Amino acid sequence: MASPVNPPRGMRDFLPADKARREHALGIIKNVYRSHGFDEIETPVVEDYARLHAGLGGDNEKLSFSILKRGITADALAAAAAAGNPEQLADLGLRFDLTVPLTRFYASHRAELPSVFRALQIAPVWRAERPQKGRYRQFVQADIDIIGEAGLLAEIELITATSQVLAELGLAGCTIRVNDRRVLFGLLSHCGFESAVHDRALITVDKLDKIGSAGVVDELRELDSVDAETLGVVLAAVEPKLAGDGITLTPQAIEASLPGVAENTGAAAGIESLVELGAALAGALPEGVTIRFDPTLVRGMGYYTGTIFEIAHPGSGSSVG
Amino acid sequence: MASPVNPPRGMRDFLPADKARREHALGIIKNVYRSHGFDEIETPVVEDYARLHAGLGGDNEKLSFSILKRGITADALAAAAAAGNPEQLADLGLRFDLTVPLTRFYASHRAELPSVFRALQIAPVWRAERPQKGRYRQFVQADIDIIGEAGLLAEIELITATSQVLAELGLAGCTIRVNDRRVLFGLLSHCGFESAVHDRALITVDKLDKIGSAGVVDELRELDSVDAETLGVVLAAVEPKLAGDGITLTPQAIEASLPGVAENTGAAAGIESLVELGAALAGALPEGVTIRFDPTLVRGMGYYTGTIFEIAHPGSGSSVG
Repeated sequence: MASPVNPPRGMRDFLPADKARREHALGIIKNVYRSHGFDEIETPVVEDYARLHAGLGGDNEKLSFSILKRGITADALAAAAAAGNPEQLADLGLRFDLTVPLTRFYASHRAELPSVFRALQIAPVWRAERPQKGRYRQFVQADIDIIGEAGLLAEIELITATSQVLAELGLAGCTIRVNDRRVLFGLLSHCGFESAVHDRALITVDKLDKIGSAGVVDELRELDSVDAETLGVVLAAVEPKLAGDGITLTPQAIEASLPGVAENTGAAAGIESLVELGAALAGALPEGVTIRFDPTLVRGMGYYTGTIFEIAHPGSGSSVG
Repeated sequence: MASPVNPPRGMRDFLPADKARREHALGIIKNVYRSHGFDEIETPVVEDYARLHAGLGGDNEKLSFSILKRGITADALAAAAAAGNPEQLADLGLRFDLTVPLTRFYASHRAELPSVFRALQIAPVWRAERPQKGRYRQFVQADIDIIGEAGLLAEIELITATSQVLAELGLAGCTIRVNDRRVLFGLLSHCGFESAVHDRALITVDKLDKIGSAGVVDELRELDSVDAETLGVVLAAVEPKLAGDGITLTPQAIEASLPGVAENTGAAAGIESLVELGAALAGALPEGVTIRFDPTLVRGMGYYTGTIFEIAHPGSGSSVG
């Protein structure tokens, strides 16, 4: 039985030594991002219930903690019971990410902010997930965002600054894996999937590192068995390259890893953009940080449009950023 | 009408310039307290509902935001409606102070902490108060606590460290007002109040600076009209001294401000302790920080036992700490 003086389930206390380590690391992150022109902001920990459930948060919305209205009447309580919906009694919730608060913040304060706004927010978020090793229900996110700047230039800044953070934290040997949503959609079209099922298919593709190409095909059969097989062949060919040194950011290597896909117009634009990104970053990345193309990198949220990236460190089994 | 992109009612965003000022001030506070041997800890923002409503938080418990259980069944919802109690549906809540979390933290981690533990926690707390000028529903508290050290020595350390914080923040001209709960209870007994009504009487005495001695007498008449008049005479005599330079921390000045009260054993012990405190702090306070006895200083929470103190700054109408 858990001790009655433990923190709430899936949350944790920081003792002085751990807190000092954490503050030290967060201080490094802040300083590097500040030196790249990011300005720190703060928003309240809670947001209006309707905003948290407006669809921007994807599946994370389902994991949000809801806060009871104050002064709920007997009538309101009876109405919620009749509707079988306790969420009617909530008017606020704990944020599940820092993106929803940032969009509200920007809409509210746009007139007071520079035309290109580099935002930094380091703060806790909450998700009512089943607690598991290394995943907590309260955890800190460090978000940087650039609003008002053309796509690729912003991506270059985000990746350069983040790479420097990793180097300053002493996380040597990191690999930045990049992809572009247009490549993903091009890949799915190339294999024959209708655009209506693209989002569902991507959720499965995202599991490649966990369940392998055979597992992905099994799951995709529910959508379309023929297309599943086609995509499975592509993924089976890509899998060993990803497990090895990865796919370098050159047109040749990218096209060789996805034969035929580059003929799709959207995918071609995505590949071109990735190659430009790689060229711009060449020489700008700190010692020991590698950048690689990963055509199976998905990221969960539907709001990503162009470049997506994720950072892996050999000391951690999961993505570190 | 409020803009739909404002933060939730009574909460606020911090734009870069404000956030930078705030972080600068919090950095000073942290550094000074660390240099006095306080160790920073962190606890989750939420605590179990039962713990937040166990009575340690006094009136603040009523102001706490409650978090809905996840996966509430139709039966549980119907039961809450039948009982007319929506709080049955909550299992967590946002903390309303940092003291309740600290006591839980200490109970949980005692074996891993030094025998004299100087804790520093700087973090947000939430209260569902009616928003008003200068009072927010989310605000930051900076708490220092010493656990495991005899009373007076701990008080001296808390006041010395806090005075240095004020000086480093550039808050010149601060006055630390001190009292001792034993003086308050002695005063009430001296005036004839039964101990059963002491807590209620103190809530009224606490309003002296807002409603004056006549106002206090009016409110106290509900408890006991004769005792109210007696206490009113004492308070009316004290009032001009408090409004002036205050009451110096000498036995003579303290006893002169409360004639006859020092004969009460409890009050005498409290006065002796305050005088010792004043002597120990003489010379240890930074330039410009003054310490004064205030027999009407109450502090809301019932968990205070001995010394209580509050800090006033001429630039702020209310207490700053």
